[in-house]
Amino acid sequence: MTEGWIRFETGVARGYGHVRLIGGKAWTMLTTMAELKGFEEHKGPTRDKGVEHGVRPGRTTWLERRQQEEAELGVTTQPYVVIVGGGQGGIALGARLRRLSVPTIIIDKNSRPGDSWRKRYKSLCLHDPVWYDHLPYLPFPEHWPVFSPKDKIADWLEMYTTVMEFDYWGSAECKSARYDDAKQEWTVEIVRNGKPITLRPRQLVLATGMSAVPTMPSVPGMEIFKGDLHHSSKHPGPDGYSDKKAVVIGSNNSGHDICAALWEEGADVTMVQRSSTHVARSDTLMELALGGLYSEAALKAGITTDKADLIFASLPYKVLPSLQVPVYAEMKKRDADFYARLEQAGFKLDFGDDDSGLFLKYLRRGSGYYIDVGASELVADGKIKLKSGVGIERIKERAIVFSDGSELPADVIVFATGYGSMNGWAAQLISREVADKVGKCWGLGSDTRKDPGPWEGELRNMWKPTHQEALWFHGGNLHQSRHYSQFLSLQLKARMAGIPTPVYGMGPVHHLS
Amino acid sequence: MTEGWIRFETGVARGYGHVRLIGGKAWTMLTTMAELKGFEEHKGPTRDKGVEHGVRPGRTTWLERRQQEEAELGVTTQPYVVIVGGGQGGIALGARLRRLSVPTIIIDKNSRPGDSWRKRYKSLCLHDPVWYDHLPYLPFPEHWPVFSPKDKIADWLEMYTTVMEFDYWGSAECKSARYDDAKQEWTVEIVRNGKPITLRPRQLVLATGMSAVPTMPSVPGMEIFKGDLHHSSKHPGPDGYSDKKAVVIGSNNSGHDICAALWEEGADVTMVQRSSTHVARSDTLMELALGGLYSEAALKAGITTDKADLIFASLPYKVLPSLQVPVYAEMKKRDADFYARLEQAGFKLDFGDDDSGLFLKYLRRGSGYYIDVGASELVADGKIKLKSGVGIERIKERAIVFSDGSELPADVIVFATGYGSMNGWAAQLISREVADKVGKCWGLGSDTRKDPGPWEGELRNMWKPTHQEALWFHGGNLHQSRHYSQFLSLQLKARMAGIPTPVYGMGPVHHLS
Repeated sequence: MTEGWIRFETGVARGYGHVRLIGGKAWTMLTTMAELKGFEEHKGPTRDKGVEHGVRPGRTTWLERRQQEEAELGVTTQPYVVIVGGGQGGIALGARLRRLSVPTIIIDKNSRPGDSWRKRYKSLCLHDPVWYDHLPYLPFPEHWPVFSPKDKIADWLEMYTTVMEFDYWGSAECKSARYDDAKQEWTVEIVRNGKPITLRPRQLVLATGMSAVPTMPSVPGMEIFKGDLHHSSKHPGPDGYSDKKAVVIGSNNSGHDICAALWEEGADVTMVQRSSTHVARSDTLMELALGGLYSEAALKAGITTDKADLIFASLPYKVLPSLQVPVYAEMKKRDADFYARLEQAGFKLDFGDDDSGLFLKYLRRGSGYYIDVGASELVADGKIKLKSGVGIERIKERAIVFSDGSELPADVIVFATGYGSMNGWAAQLISREVADKVGKCWGLGSDTRKDPGPWEGELRNMWKPTHQEALWFHGGNLHQSRHYSQFLSLQLKARMAGIPTPVYGMGPVHHLS
Repeated sequence: MTEGWIRFETGVARGYGHVRLIGGKAWTMLTTMAELKGFEEHKGPTRDKGVEHGVRPGRTTWLERRQQEEAELGVTTQPYVVIVGGGQGGIALGARLRRLSVPTIIIDKNSRPGDSWRKRYKSLCLHDPVWYDHLPYLPFPEHWPVFSPKDKIADWLEMYTTVMEFDYWGSAECKSARYDDAKQEWTVEIVRNGKPITLRPRQLVLATGMSAVPTMPSVPGMEIFKGDLHHSSKHPGPDGYSDKKAVVIGSNNSGHDICAALWEEGADVTMVQRSSTHVARSDTLMELALGGLYSEAALKAGITTDKADLIFASLPYKVLPSLQVPVYAEMKKRDADFYARLEQAGFKLDFGDDDSGLFLKYLRRGSGYYIDVGASELVADGKIKLKSGVGIERIKERAIVFSDGSELPADVIVFATGYGSMNGWAAQLISREVADKVGKCWGLGSDTRKDPGPWEGELRNMWKPTHQEALWFHGGNLHQSRHYSQFLSLQLKARMAGIPTPVYGMGPVHHLS
């Protein structure tokens, strides 16, 4: 196989790409847009001067201009884009749009950037390593830890928002949005610091997060439970539960993290595993699955973050499983003892429907796995008790009753039961009709569990035009927030600049949520 | 001439150096310490993991540890170092000491990091370009403007303080400090948020800024002046002075900046030039004096910031003037028309006592120049009126009387009369006795104006042991804050670690201030 990088130009843009040739014929080919001609970002030799030298009566300072923009944008002038959701997705996109001079307001119901991380359970850390997590323009310094604690990443997001100088409205909740086809603009109703405000952007981005609409099963008896009962997204952490009986429903990342923290605090913990789960040990995952592109070794080999992102993107999703299967076969072999002990404890393991492992589970369904940073040993040892292969029948005042008739006393029940499709947000904010018109977000149509066919080839509705004009979805981990915000920002800039943007190959909607 | 880089090791440290050979013999040689063996900073492959994988009952989170440190340091535990002054100097040093695990508290009388910039006159921008201004560990992003506006650099300093995680006490004023020889510790009296606190560090760093003790001449009649009269450090900016008669005493950077801003606002402005001044046009200065090391072109040629700093440092101050003279001769030639027009307007120009220009003026006396970003044209055009070669005799209720008997009406008088030696701070905070023991800070002993001989060869008292045990001075522009904080932090760390630190060649004190 021969690989190579390409540069190309079209009438309106410049870009980079990557090709793989086998026997002189193209096997894979990626093209990505890097900049629109005439709208290049100012950087390096073209950076702004900062101060205008010379003498200018009526000159305003940088601070005065920033304050004026803050006072006017959304009040007397309208942003071109409104981004609902100020997590890493909204923030990365906001940075890029600022650099492209696209007037944008990010709104978030929390008061400070980073709060979506701060407010989670206290033991939360990134399960992705630092090399994979850089935001655009301002990489983490060299001493940044491999796995960022949640409050540290929150502080970084907050300072990033300040120094990238974009308009971030905290304590601003989006109540509704509707699109006026005739005017080609949105009416977005917001409550900011308790006061209603209407914004009228041309483009609306929902960056409300892949994990924003909690899935909370309805179980008979929930309302009579006398202890604490909450979804994992509201779990406060283990403090105060040291002598309590805790039951955590769910066996993905959050479920494991929460169980481990509760156990460390001294709680009596049971994990309820409803269906088989993929587990990958963090060290092994870093080495086998990510290390080639995102690691110190990769950097040493000249694979910068930008290059890694392009190589990563250059593998079509149709081809990707066949390349992932051997990685996870190696993982299964290397950690055979570990997996054996887990299974002995009753834990139901899988490596994905086709043994393609974690990343494809993430792309297909955004769930179904745990990156083990320690909790699996507690499960294997029986320190975290396991209840596997059973459903929940009902809840009593101080207990859970399972489908096999068994009963478990409980002081606290955590539903680590995941999140629904992002178009649930479109339904809430816009209308059921628009949500259905747009259809399911995320997933590839792989015809595997929770990702029904037919094959669609790209993540549904993400970072690209949808069946609702001027509505966009943005989300995912830090890598995706960084990488795909580039293409989404250029699509938005092109529309603002009046560059023709014909959309090819938009498929029909197959699934509603 | 042959140039080359060297790496070396001693028993306790690793370092880099640079040599220049002429005819096979060493002409210049620089050695710098990069790290202490056994106390290397964790970065890249040795970076921290962030989360501790595995299971640890009683585990604390990053946030809990940060909060605990904030609650305890300076209260129940003592810092090893106290840095008085949280401008760029204190901040850069604080970052390095944090990375070296030296418990440190920075105290600053302003409430937020960056306030020392925010509170200055509103048109203030850095006169040094971005390539010269990076802080350690976290360089500015590629789109950062060439000349940072003051509020933008202030925001950067504030976020830097947060993400570098050091203990910065805002609203904390140092009232006094005294050293106990027997205990080998300082007693530092502080008022923090209105409450007295005593700190007992082993080392005290005055990073109060080269520009921290304003020099305010005493002029008869000052007390009866009916208008506004203040030192440039307190100048609020031009707002409200649009129809006023303004007189600015002084013709260095601040004097010019303030005059230009007042003129832009519509004030009637007179600059009083007391002695000849060096003027370098910003563009010319960047190209001729800094461009070889700090510019896009330098970066393209592989001269990173670190390399540039070492090359810069590799020229001994004894040799430097002979290398600078041709640079400024070229400047004089290139901008001959400009200088002619300035002189025609009555402006008294110089290029330093030995025509060695701006940077040597900075090293010798920290004053005596203006980097022209526009005000000189106003002076040349007579838009800023000039009063040159006169002293100020006295001040009347609404006027200034000069030594030539002339009188100038004035609504506002700004004394842009500069700052005294940093050991003025030692006198204020510690004692006159200690200030005198330590002697003058800054300057080389070049026997030029404001830098009396004898030759000392290095900046007096800066970043190195002084005649007062455990007292250090740190200051200067962003470049110096970045570069010299490395060596100061290593000297402090070595002392904390108990590594022998004999001091060679400490000379006698020749000047008291």
